[in-house]
Amino acid sequence: MRARLPRPGKRVLRGVGDDAAWVATSRQTLATCDLLIENVHFIRDMILPRLLGRKSLSVNLSDIAAMGGIPDFAVLALGFPREIELEYVDEMLEGFLEVAAENKLEVIGGDTTAAPVLTIAVTVLGRPSPPGPVVRSGARPGDDIWVTGTVGEASLGFELLKKSRVQEPEISDLHYSSLAVRHFDPTPRLQAGKKLAGIAHAMIDVSDGILSDLARILEESSGKTPLRGCLELEKIPLSRDFKKYFDDKPWQSEHGLGLALTGGEDYELLFTAAPSQRRQIKKLAGELDLEFSRIGRIERARNLEIVLQNQKGQAVPLPKPWFEHFPEQE
Amino acid sequence: MRARLPRPGKRVLRGVGDDAAWVATSRQTLATCDLLIENVHFIRDMILPRLLGRKSLSVNLSDIAAMGGIPDFAVLALGFPREIELEYVDEMLEGFLEVAAENKLEVIGGDTTAAPVLTIAVTVLGRPSPPGPVVRSGARPGDDIWVTGTVGEASLGFELLKKSRVQEPEISDLHYSSLAVRHFDPTPRLQAGKKLAGIAHAMIDVSDGILSDLARILEESSGKTPLRGCLELEKIPLSRDFKKYFDDKPWQSEHGLGLALTGGEDYELLFTAAPSQRRQIKKLAGELDLEFSRIGRIERARNLEIVLQNQKGQAVPLPKPWFEHFPEQE
Repeated sequence: MRARLPRPGKRVLRGVGDDAAWVATSRQTLATCDLLIENVHFIRDMILPRLLGRKSLSVNLSDIAAMGGIPDFAVLALGFPREIELEYVDEMLEGFLEVAAENKLEVIGGDTTAAPVLTIAVTVLGRPSPPGPVVRSGARPGDDIWVTGTVGEASLGFELLKKSRVQEPEISDLHYSSLAVRHFDPTPRLQAGKKLAGIAHAMIDVSDGILSDLARILEESSGKTPLRGCLELEKIPLSRDFKKYFDDKPWQSEHGLGLALTGGEDYELLFTAAPSQRRQIKKLAGELDLEFSRIGRIERARNLEIVLQNQKGQAVPLPKPWFEHFPEQE
Repeated sequence: MRARLPRPGKRVLRGVGDDAAWVATSRQTLATCDLLIENVHFIRDMILPRLLGRKSLSVNLSDIAAMGGIPDFAVLALGFPREIELEYVDEMLEGFLEVAAENKLEVIGGDTTAAPVLTIAVTVLGRPSPPGPVVRSGARPGDDIWVTGTVGEASLGFELLKKSRVQEPEISDLHYSSLAVRHFDPTPRLQAGKKLAGIAHAMIDVSDGILSDLARILEESSGKTPLRGCLELEKIPLSRDFKKYFDDKPWQSEHGLGLALTGGEDYELLFTAAPSQRRQIKKLAGELDLEFSRIGRIERARNLEIVLQNQKGQAVPLPKPWFEHFPEQE
């Protein structure tokens, strides 16, 4: 694996091949780690090894994006079952290194070992961009709630793949559909995150669905006064493909509502900001060629809660969690 | 788990509870990661959960010690099988936090998930101590080879436990013997490592046995001229308990030779230094109350090799690897 890595850059004083990596860092460091386990986070015959490699790094970069940070280094620890082929490992590593190169990250070390199932532990180190990180705890009453891109596609894509797998267990064309790509190859919103530092009051990446992740912002931001998140249903951004699947009436379907609001792995940024920043955020949308949707507002409340209303101002009951984050272990 | 962590110190600007941890670091950072997998690195019913927690951090600290570094932060990612009990997790975390406190580390984040077997991924961040890190690649012809403490006990202890397990599957008194403790609860040589920065030319921690780890130093240090490591058998430091097990003739037994030279998990420091540093190193031994043994020397050679000789200057054949690093998966 060491031979596959590109030549280390100037910031890497000592990379793979020693007891620890030795790198030049800034005075403040961001660190995040994700553990991906076969049959829990992915099914090996449902994802191409290259895409698995890409995704295992992208989900960590999404965490750095959600802090408004800039990623610098990745540490990759892999556990392999005995039967896995060298070619598989090569392709996985290729995908991982693609995403590293696309985002100017250096892979500085790791560990490899035997394991009963394919096990991927990725740690990413980064740095805040000025004026400093955006944490989950900064939401204030009166803030707008925003989300980048569109939501729900990743979980719809995964659901379709799970269904099709019954008839067609091999990797098929469906894997290359726009919906499936959202599940397999998420785009970490690093540019948006970086530009939102100094604008957003609180930020998180949407990994478990808008409702769960908004609840985390509310939990971390509620001090003595609890906060309420009010979401306007029709403002939640959906892609054309997603809408089409629900005959252009996604909000009238329990299924559509569930996937859009509780579907996981969108890896968009959900953030709050003062209404005075609206123009600035719209400008950013233009610069980055990325949709930014204002989907609700933060209010003071008696209890921490999320309320959902439609265009007519009527309350809509919150959908039950639809997306199964941990499929049954096989 | 978050509630179990001690109050974060000043260096932690944002710890557990956000998308990424945010910490104050120095301009240079050391990073190391180890993946520990049940039935590969440990058998769950052979190690107390508290000791497993301790060991999973200690082995990473040993890597920082081997760079002559100072550990600052730990990131802990855990995968749990469904049947594991909360009490088990609590005890494991307690052990992990004990070692963190003993070494003034802060636990800044992590991940928890389901997994088919207990899976522990630990990343430690640290900083070099002045005048800078000791890498594996600095060994020079003429250097002495040194090792701290004693070797072979951890693998002998593990071997005895594996044998006793056939008659007595429960955790027994044997677990508390000095030999077993070397296997279960290694001491990372952080003070020694730090003091050796500026003295040692090359350093590594003994995780796979003296021969394997010396070979790594030779590989990394050999430039155009290959290097040879010459070891003097009787100078290799063994504990009283280890010698007693072999009727005080450990070097006459193939088994003793195998464990002492190829046994893993000693977590002592193996390093090379100029002969002019001998007095300085002896002084250090006194200050730290730790044995430092000069066990050989580095020479120029035709091929990269390790040679072993006894007191009489006779060549001794290298033992075959004795210690099974990966027991069969159950």
